[in-house]
Amino acid sequence: MEFPSKVIEAAVGELSRLPGVGRKTALRLALHILRKSEVEAEALGNAIIALRRDVKYCNKCGNISDAEICNICASPRRNQAQVCVVEDCKDVIAIENTNQYTGSYHVLGGIINPLAGIGPHQLNIDPLIARVDTGECQEIIFALSSSIEGDTTAFYISKKLRDRKVRITSIARGIPVGSELEFTDEITLARSLMNRVDFSVSSEASGL
Amino acid sequence: MEFPSKVIEAAVGELSRLPGVGRKTALRLALHILRKSEVEAEALGNAIIALRRDVKYCNKCGNISDAEICNICASPRRNQAQVCVVEDCKDVIAIENTNQYTGSYHVLGGIINPLAGIGPHQLNIDPLIARVDTGECQEIIFALSSSIEGDTTAFYISKKLRDRKVRITSIARGIPVGSELEFTDEITLARSLMNRVDFSVSSEASGL
Repeated sequence: MEFPSKVIEAAVGELSRLPGVGRKTALRLALHILRKSEVEAEALGNAIIALRRDVKYCNKCGNISDAEICNICASPRRNQAQVCVVEDCKDVIAIENTNQYTGSYHVLGGIINPLAGIGPHQLNIDPLIARVDTGECQEIIFALSSSIEGDTTAFYISKKLRDRKVRITSIARGIPVGSELEFTDEITLARSLMNRVDFSVSSEASGL
Repeated sequence: MEFPSKVIEAAVGELSRLPGVGRKTALRLALHILRKSEVEAEALGNAIIALRRDVKYCNKCGNISDAEICNICASPRRNQAQVCVVEDCKDVIAIENTNQYTGSYHVLGGIINPLAGIGPHQLNIDPLIARVDTGECQEIIFALSSSIEGDTTAFYISKKLRDRKVRITSIARGIPVGSELEFTDEITLARSLMNRVDFSVSSEASGL
């Protein structure tokens, strides 16, 4: 694709580095930006620069935050002894949206993925061990994705925590609510049978 | 969706104004930008700002250009008497990619769309009439989208040009090359029969 101008070529080049954005989509986005006012284009550009420059991470849980300690870690209404380990900020938002979880979080900033060159030392794992060592954690809940990488990460952390006095749990894998049995894959179905729960517990709406 | 930080909320807000980007996709893009270096985030932000601020339009055809007159309008190898009327820069790129067209362009910057509040006076139509009035144009080729808006725009311009001595043509509507007859919609099929061409002409690879 040949572009009539260097500024549009540069913008398409940059926009097409975004995930899921090819050169055609990038050109569509660039033409959309051209139709907007200069003020709107600056607002978008500056928001992207500010995002990377001004973002802060909570010193305790590693989640994105405006302050040194995030709202969840600082809240006296949250159970700081219960720590839910997640991959990134998206997962915190997803769990918060359930309005069911009252504990705190620990954001790893990724999962162990040797193929992508991500080892345990690039992740926020050591601070989690340190948190457990302070004695304030009673339960670690793994809420990582159900993939080889997610399982590896959970296994690595659980091994590190083996000698510590802390309960380690994982969110339940099973059939999604509203899903039909016949369309569920065999592994999920087998796992949901293996990890069956007492009827009274599973029918409770909330019991964290 | 509640965000843990104001900078990420601002960035998601701005990114989700882009076409085809909802709040979930915007969050995914924002987290991708956070994983990149500050230099890369600045390159993206500045490319967007520069795009809107530094973009220039060709004084003659209205296409995006780095100079006062774009490469196509300035080229002595292009037939300036043949003017292809298109909606925007994307269409110029698409036609240029065919490597078949040797004339020049006129970019309207949109099509007449009363529902979106776009009338003929917001478009680059008057300069097209002025170009015809200089006497340098012998043929106007409409290459607008095959919609009510595209047809309205072509009709409006053709009415304006009625008394001028210029040939007005439109790109052929018909069955796409490689397409099968049975899957073609009735209107396209009827039109391709109505606008049938002599066999020797249609089998020529190039004949602009």
